Amino acid sequence: MNGAESLVQTLTAQGVDICFANPGTSEMHFLKALENPAMRSVLCLFEGVCTGAADGYYRMKGTPASTLLHLGPGLANGLANIHNAKRASSGMVNIVGEHSASHLKYDPPLTSDIEGLARPLSHWVRRVESSHTVAWDVAAAVSKASEHVGQIATLILPGDASWQEAGEAVVPSRSMTAPKAKAPDVARVEHIAKVLHSGEPTLIVLAGHSTQGRAVELAGKLKAATGCRIATQFFSARIERGAGRVTLERIPYAVNQAVDYLKGFKHIITVETTEPIAFFSYPDKPSLLKSPGTSVHELVEIGEDGVAGLEMLVEAVGASNAKAVLQQRADSTPPTGALGPASIAQALAAALPENCILVDESLTTGRETMGLTVGAAPHDLINNMGGSIGYGTPVATGAALACPDRRVFCMVGDGSAMYTIQSLWTQARENLNITTIIFANNSYAILKAEYANMGAGAPGERALAMIDIDRPRIDWLAMAKSMGVPAVSVDTAEAFHQAMANSVNESGPCLIEVRL
Amino acid sequence: MNGAESLVQTLTAQGVDICFANPGTSEMHFLKALENPAMRSVLCLFEGVCTGAADGYYRMKGTPASTLLHLGPGLANGLANIHNAKRASSGMVNIVGEHSASHLKYDPPLTSDIEGLARPLSHWVRRVESSHTVAWDVAAAVSKASEHVGQIATLILPGDASWQEAGEAVVPSRSMTAPKAKAPDVARVEHIAKVLHSGEPTLIVLAGHSTQGRAVELAGKLKAATGCRIATQFFSARIERGAGRVTLERIPYAVNQAVDYLKGFKHIITVETTEPIAFFSYPDKPSLLKSPGTSVHELVEIGEDGVAGLEMLVEAVGASNAKAVLQQRADSTPPTGALGPASIAQALAAALPENCILVDESLTTGRETMGLTVGAAPHDLINNMGGSIGYGTPVATGAALACPDRRVFCMVGDGSAMYTIQSLWTQARENLNITTIIFANNSYAILKAEYANMGAGAPGERALAMIDIDRPRIDWLAMAKSMGVPAVSVDTAEAFHQAMANSVNESGPCLIEVRL
Repeated sequence: MNGAESLVQTLTAQGVDICFANPGTSEMHFLKALENPAMRSVLCLFEGVCTGAADGYYRMKGTPASTLLHLGPGLANGLANIHNAKRASSGMVNIVGEHSASHLKYDPPLTSDIEGLARPLSHWVRRVESSHTVAWDVAAAVSKASEHVGQIATLILPGDASWQEAGEAVVPSRSMTAPKAKAPDVARVEHIAKVLHSGEPTLIVLAGHSTQGRAVELAGKLKAATGCRIATQFFSARIERGAGRVTLERIPYAVNQAVDYLKGFKHIITVETTEPIAFFSYPDKPSLLKSPGTSVHELVEIGEDGVAGLEMLVEAVGASNAKAVLQQRADSTPPTGALGPASIAQALAAALPENCILVDESLTTGRETMGLTVGAAPHDLINNMGGSIGYGTPVATGAALACPDRRVFCMVGDGSAMYTIQSLWTQARENLNITTIIFANNSYAILKAEYANMGAGAPGERALAMIDIDRPRIDWLAMAKSMGVPAVSVDTAEAFHQAMANSVNESGPCLIEVRL
Repeated sequence: MNGAESLVQTLTAQGVDICFANPGTSEMHFLKALENPAMRSVLCLFEGVCTGAADGYYRMKGTPASTLLHLGPGLANGLANIHNAKRASSGMVNIVGEHSASHLKYDPPLTSDIEGLARPLSHWVRRVESSHTVAWDVAAAVSKASEHVGQIATLILPGDASWQEAGEAVVPSRSMTAPKAKAPDVARVEHIAKVLHSGEPTLIVLAGHSTQGRAVELAGKLKAATGCRIATQFFSARIERGAGRVTLERIPYAVNQAVDYLKGFKHIITVETTEPIAFFSYPDKPSLLKSPGTSVHELVEIGEDGVAGLEMLVEAVGASNAKAVLQQRADSTPPTGALGPASIAQALAAALPENCILVDESLTTGRETMGLTVGAAPHDLINNMGGSIGYGTPVATGAALACPDRRVFCMVGDGSAMYTIQSLWTQARENLNITTIIFANNSYAILKAEYANMGAGAPGERALAMIDIDRPRIDWLAMAKSMGVPAVSVDTAEAFHQAMANSVNESGPCLIEVRL
């Protein structure tokens, strides 16, 4: 067995059985090793699709995927979505091909400082020194990526470590996987129980794993028992929401609105997150969004066990038997007429099937719409945690591979979709159940608002030319066709609803252009 | 004047009058400053297009363009083509937006270590500390980028440095631009003259600025006077070639062929390059391509003045009056029949108009074809120096903006084209005279050969699935249409020739799919 075979065998033995790949010459032995039937290889035509798909896979599965990237520039192409994954606490194992040590000293054209490129956005970086250590190196990478808060592990694999003999198969035991997260400190919990008993206006902000399942139920009990309110940050890695679940409020994105929203609270209790901050800095607007008189109490630190912390708090407050209020099912009458935030939301709420996955990267449209979809059938909602554009279609790709029985709806602005549009090809190749919804306003519309927010006034002709993307107008039907994805264009609420409903009835990907 | 206005004014005063931009919220004041009519702003839908276009611009113009990128991830998306530009010695000034210092300490979502990301692929990195220093900072960046061997200069621009008052316009004088390159050492030249006089088989390898104009003429004199041969590496940043010019041989890409090619030479003389090395490492193949008995003599180091060195050598050898042999015009009869390396080359040689620019990223097809186009009308040929795929269409975009009166032909494989396909949109928007030729073999065909070269044998079904990109087959006519570029598909030599000839007669971009 050579190093590459040892690597792939170890990956699968450790539970990493999918690889999002864009290989090059230096990874040919790895490619041969991918003949191992325990590993599913998914080809992507651009590395940002590989890393974004690994993020989406982790968000739904909770275990890391691997990527295969071609030397420093291949890694570089994947970095923006690694950034997003890191901010979402998604674990992943990146395998980066590299020249053999004997070749590297001649500084051939594709040489770069791979460690230097990897470190700013990886938690763990290692270079394989020998084919004999590959198994241990990759086991350490998987262990790191699998920690309770997922980590970015990047393993650099020189060609010679790949093709040289690795000896007998050494598969390190699974005990190398990391210990479970710790529960928070009792004294902290008791202090926060007193805050909730005080009756002063209090907001609990949930994030990380605490926006799903049992954690949300527990937060609902706290709300029922103490009258506190419960919310998420504007962006969350994954929220379980919809009819029959405890509803979480959402702290607004715009600074002024967020400040207004938070100003009534005397206390903010954080769970797996920090206090609310502005996404960007603006002249004459604050970075911290809370009122000066508000106290912040950290119940669960990032990396601690959110469910354990909330269980402890529920008990300390005496809310174990409180009954959380559950979200009502919204009216599911399909809308008619013009497309606007309300009718788009109504169409979504009516069409989203139970247990679907909603990936949202519709910056302008989504901001006005998503709040209105909370009464849809129960579903998972995924947001961009790192703010780097082009996360939506790759994350949807990975989520669909993680959950083949659930349809994924990817809501994405036209500007955002263009960054990693190559995702469509992988979706067609793998026949993934993804409905991509392009909100086509032919503009980086979000920037028009931001231009004013910055105090720059109304954009002039030249500035507008850097914001509008209407010359030429992107033909989304042709774009989808070019990569083998069936598509339809809609300009009424009823047509939008119908297109979504139709997409659920057929397997495989499709694209809906929503003309705004 | 605020910091952003000071920056743009200084850029244009220093001669940097084009900006390839993909802006975000933190760059809104920069966008406003781009209202300055002395600056041409070109919007790109993905940052790899921005940096590749800056590379193409430099290759043809010899002076740096600027890019505008949105924080660390925006820079990351541009890094692969920065790598290629760095390896081509193309200068560029990257402006990377950043959070204000006061905001950065809260670690908002888009925060990353921008210096850390920039350093591995930049020669110079600086963070603007105050709006008052912006003008000096950017002047230093332009000066660095403009050095004789172009440099990658990356300037990080925090929001507050952009929007705060910068005081009076301070435009540093142009004397900050770098000194000219030095001529090589006389003793070195005299030593090499003796080598040429020895009559032993000698190859001169030209690169950098020495593959153009006067340098190539001088090399032709050396060949005529001494019987030496003259060649380039397999990849060159820009070669002036074609009928009526001195012909340069090309050292083959494949290791075995390159070793065969070089084995007859007793001496290799290098000009602005190093001795020939393999692009990748392979089991049982050498990294150094020369024979063990061959001596290497460095006439002109990278960064020295190639023309001065060659003038000195011509004089030392006594070849000033030698008459270089010039390339004959090839038969320009358009070919007919099936498409293959020879008929593709014949069609190119017949159709390429005088003074056009040829950007080559057709790995498989180009390797067998380009040697046969040397008798075309005189043209410039541009190669990928860094080996990171996705350089072709962006570089063509920048080259067309640098030379609006010259048609650019971009020869690109289908796999390569997909990395930065967003270039087509900018080409349509700016109505650039670019003919994109997609060689559609529905495969990363180069990897099939490399799989065997690596000693991995014939790829199995799963490995092939990572190499073939025929499921789905990309519909290039639809892809071009989606971004507003007219396109045609050809499957015979005469249709290919006709499509190229037609493209020259109309202004603006077009795409030709060559079905292989």
